[in-house]
Amino acid sequence: MGKVNLEDNDTKEKKTEFSLVRVKDTWKCKRGKKVTADNVSAAKIYESVTENSTSWTVVSPIVFTYKVTETRDLLEPSNQTLLLGHISDPQQLEDMKKSNKQIRRFLVVDQEVYKFYGPKLTEYLEANKVLYKILALPTTEENKSMTMALKILEEVNNFSLDRRTEPIIAIGGGVCLDIVGLAASLYRRRTPYIRVPTTLLSYIDASVGAKTGVNFANCKNKLGAYIPPAAAFLDLSFMQTVPRRHISNGLAEMLKTHGRMLLDTKFQADNRVYGRNCMQVASQATRIAIVNMLEELAPNLWEDDLNRLVDFGHLISPALEMKVLPSLLHGEAVNIDMSYMVYVSKERGLLTEEEKHRIINCMVGLELPVWHEAFTMELIQKSLQDRLKHSGGLVRMPLPVALGEAEISNDTSCEILHRAYVKWCDELSVSSDSNSDS
Amino acid sequence: MGKVNLEDNDTKEKKTEFSLVRVKDTWKCKRGKKVTADNVSAAKIYESVTENSTSWTVVSPIVFTYKVTETRDLLEPSNQTLLLGHISDPQQLEDMKKSNKQIRRFLVVDQEVYKFYGPKLTEYLEANKVLYKILALPTTEENKSMTMALKILEEVNNFSLDRRTEPIIAIGGGVCLDIVGLAASLYRRRTPYIRVPTTLLSYIDASVGAKTGVNFANCKNKLGAYIPPAAAFLDLSFMQTVPRRHISNGLAEMLKTHGRMLLDTKFQADNRVYGRNCMQVASQATRIAIVNMLEELAPNLWEDDLNRLVDFGHLISPALEMKVLPSLLHGEAVNIDMSYMVYVSKERGLLTEEEKHRIINCMVGLELPVWHEAFTMELIQKSLQDRLKHSGGLVRMPLPVALGEAEISNDTSCEILHRAYVKWCDELSVSSDSNSDS
Ligand SMILES: NC(=O)c1ccc[n+]([C@@H]2O[C@H](COP(=O)([O-])OP(=O)(O)OC[C@H]3O[C@@H](n4cnc5c(N)ncnc54)[C@H](O)[C@@H]3O)[C@@H](O)[C@H]2O)c1
Ligand SMILES: NC(=O)c1ccc[n+]([C@@H]2O[C@H](COP(=O)([O-])OP(=O)(O)OC[C@H]3O[C@@H](n4cnc5c(N)ncnc54)[C@H](O)[C@@H]3O)[C@@H](O)[C@H]2O)c1
Ligand SMILES: [Zn+2]
Ligand SMILES: [Zn+2]
Repeated sequence: MGKVNLEDNDTKEKKTEFSLVRVKDTWKCKRGKKVTADNVSAAKIYESVTENSTSWTVVSPIVFTYKVTETRDLLEPSNQTLLLGHISDPQQLEDMKKSNKQIRRFLVVDQEVYKFYGPKLTEYLEANKVLYKILALPTTEENKSMTMALKILEEVNNFSLDRRTEPIIAIGGGVCLDIVGLAASLYRRRTPYIRVPTTLLSYIDASVGAKTGVNFANCKNKLGAYIPPAAAFLDLSFMQTVPRRHISNGLAEMLKTHGRMLLDTKFQADNRVYGRNCMQVASQATRIAIVNMLEELAPNLWEDDLNRLVDFGHLISPALEMKVLPSLLHGEAVNIDMSYMVYVSKERGLLTEEEKHRIINCMVGLELPVWHEAFTMELIQKSLQDRLKHSGGLVRMPLPVALGEAEISNDTSCEILHRAYVKWCDELSVSSDSNSDS
Repeated sequence: MGKVNLEDNDTKEKKTEFSLVRVKDTWKCKRGKKVTADNVSAAKIYESVTENSTSWTVVSPIVFTYKVTETRDLLEPSNQTLLLGHISDPQQLEDMKKSNKQIRRFLVVDQEVYKFYGPKLTEYLEANKVLYKILALPTTEENKSMTMALKILEEVNNFSLDRRTEPIIAIGGGVCLDIVGLAASLYRRRTPYIRVPTTLLSYIDASVGAKTGVNFANCKNKLGAYIPPAAAFLDLSFMQTVPRRHISNGLAEMLKTHGRMLLDTKFQADNRVYGRNCMQVASQATRIAIVNMLEELAPNLWEDDLNRLVDFGHLISPALEMKVLPSLLHGEAVNIDMSYMVYVSKERGLLTEEEKHRIINCMVGLELPVWHEAFTMELIQKSLQDRLKHSGGLVRMPLPVALGEAEISNDTSCEILHRAYVKWCDELSVSSDSNSDS
């Protein structure tokens, strides 16, 4: 609440703090810190009056509440999660179930996912007597644009959706969830939406946070919003149909867990190789990943705190991903970024040569690329400069200190970056040729 | 945190509450309500485990802080408000002034406003050695679209704006402020922006809240966001050049104040008719209007509470405004809506015949339209149905009970609406012909 006319350092400034108290149908300012009325809001208004200006500082808290639910058989007609699982208030749920009002839902489904699960989904909705509209779209990275968001919005508008009671449901990979999330957040300035991730990457990453977005001007997620879904419903059975490369892709974001095994089993319980307890391992591993994500996200939903370890692998990868689009998947680009950072850590003495090799071998074992020719020194420098600019003047580079652990560094010299780069190319450029873009 | 599988009412549900505690660079869940560590977040995670599912409810508060500053001579080179007035932290301000870094600003200015104030604005920026880009755009109601928002975003992106330290500045009427606010809110998922209202309507209304938006599918502000500006800077001197009709337009939203006089004087201090103290009256009247708005907005920034008296005049007017676009201004449509509601109040016995006449006369005195042929019974009914749907099943109709006072009603019968409509047309359709669309 500093002075407004900055020249007048001597101007007398009169400051007053107001609480907001409900009076019938309106709110009224009441002076003083300790207003203890019944109907007092958490919001505050601070008034500051000087000779030349009057200024009000409004402090208004908004509480986001959202649910992340792991369930099984999401599309079994008897499972009510998809239709009612976002409702947290028991009373509201009760009323909902009692009322005879037909449930209406607008769903956007990734076209590929629709091929596999369309019939089951339709059956589910029919069985539950839902009045629905399914929009199956080619939600690919190349189509991740405002144009597609607007296309969805046209249809939402035609459906004549009630934003208070009819959340938009997105079923698909991260691209689908991100576009639909943005469209919903824009519609009538905020319409609740539900995320149903169908890839491993979106299961453990895109499903739990607040971020939505589309690409713009050749930059990843340049436009978007920080509005969490009303709920995310997680069902591992969607993983059955995910191509092997895309399983690896998701594993890049959860390297610390039972990677190798999960890759072989595709997260299914009835796998011949590992037997019944596989499902348990898979769901334990993803659960750990999700709880980790939630822990980092809940206190920092809008990423105001820039020291984020979950940014590991996300410093140079966005530029790489866009540069070679569509040849690298998100997790693959992330893995290449992490692989390079392992070399930086080694050069800085944060990892031993042996630890370095163990991590790289693990990545290769998960069938993830560890090097890419488009990941040049120039790209590294450009990304770090960009980061410096948008990150409050500090690079905040997460560096691995062990398999699955990292710390934030702001003082890695250009020389080290360069030395690491040369070694990285020396040691990995050949071996990577074998599992390059397919 | 209700049950997830809604069939299993008997399933044992294990609930756990977690606080989030900062441990080095990460956050960790700690069990229990009363965690009293130093680094504990306001966020919470509630875990609920049943046989069939695990569910986490994340509760994460985001605090919005924004400033509204009334100042004089905003474009005087010595006035630092436009460049630094959004910074609340004294330390940050100190650092800013000490550092030799050149200030960079991206500004979007209404084309008409640019004609009047462009030279002065340019002079101001030059004098303060700002590296700037001014985008002068025809921000009219017809152009209030995502297309224009995207056009702004292209330019913002070319300017290579640093979203941490370089707020986007919007100077213009409500249309300009709304489009720019949306564009900024989308850019990198949230870039701070500053509102400088140059019409009376935007001065007392669009400047103080969190709403941004563009029209879509022929509906007013159908797409948008609830992200308040970092700051709004109010300077009455912009009113000098506002056309008389647009002054009336703004007065519609502040009928209770010194309307008639303000209209004649155009809010300027040196007016011949009323003399020097006019400025004081004008700024007092607008100040009251602004404080009223802030009082209603601060506790309800995202309009989660639907019982809003500030909605008075905004029930049927949006549909009317879009229907006859561009012939009615926002405030004019609002006034026609209010005029009809006065008749409804009269029919309901909330106003006497005499009070009704006084209010209508006041409106006419302010040169505001009080009737419109496109405001049909059909439009009324359609709007109320729409309201019912999007407003939690209640109409929540604000009805005037005196000049400048209203209360919320949910039980006005169709018959009363109809009777009021007939009288309204009878008494006002002729008199309104004289000041119809110009
Ligand atoms: N919002 C966030 O927090 C967040 C986090 C991480 C990543 N992302 C975004 O997510 C995107 C990447 O997500 P992705 O890896 O899921 O990509 P994707 O959405 O492109 O899906 C990958 C491919 O798998 C197909 N597919 C999806 N589910 C399937 C299934 N069950 N069976 C068979 N095929 C299936 C899709 O059609 C697609 O071809 C990126 O755009 C990234 O920016 C967002
Ligand atoms: N965000 C909010 O909370 C909020 C609140 C109320 C209204 N609005 C929106 O605001 C819009 C209406 O705002 P408005 O009435 O300011 O309309 P406007 O922005 O169209 O401006 C009206 C006209 O005045 C011109 N003009 C602006 N400043 C001038 C000046 N100083 N001198 C001369 N001419 C000037 C403009 O070029 C335009 O022709 C609507 O789209 C409405 O939805 C938003
Ligand atoms: Zn990622
Ligand atoms: Zn209005």
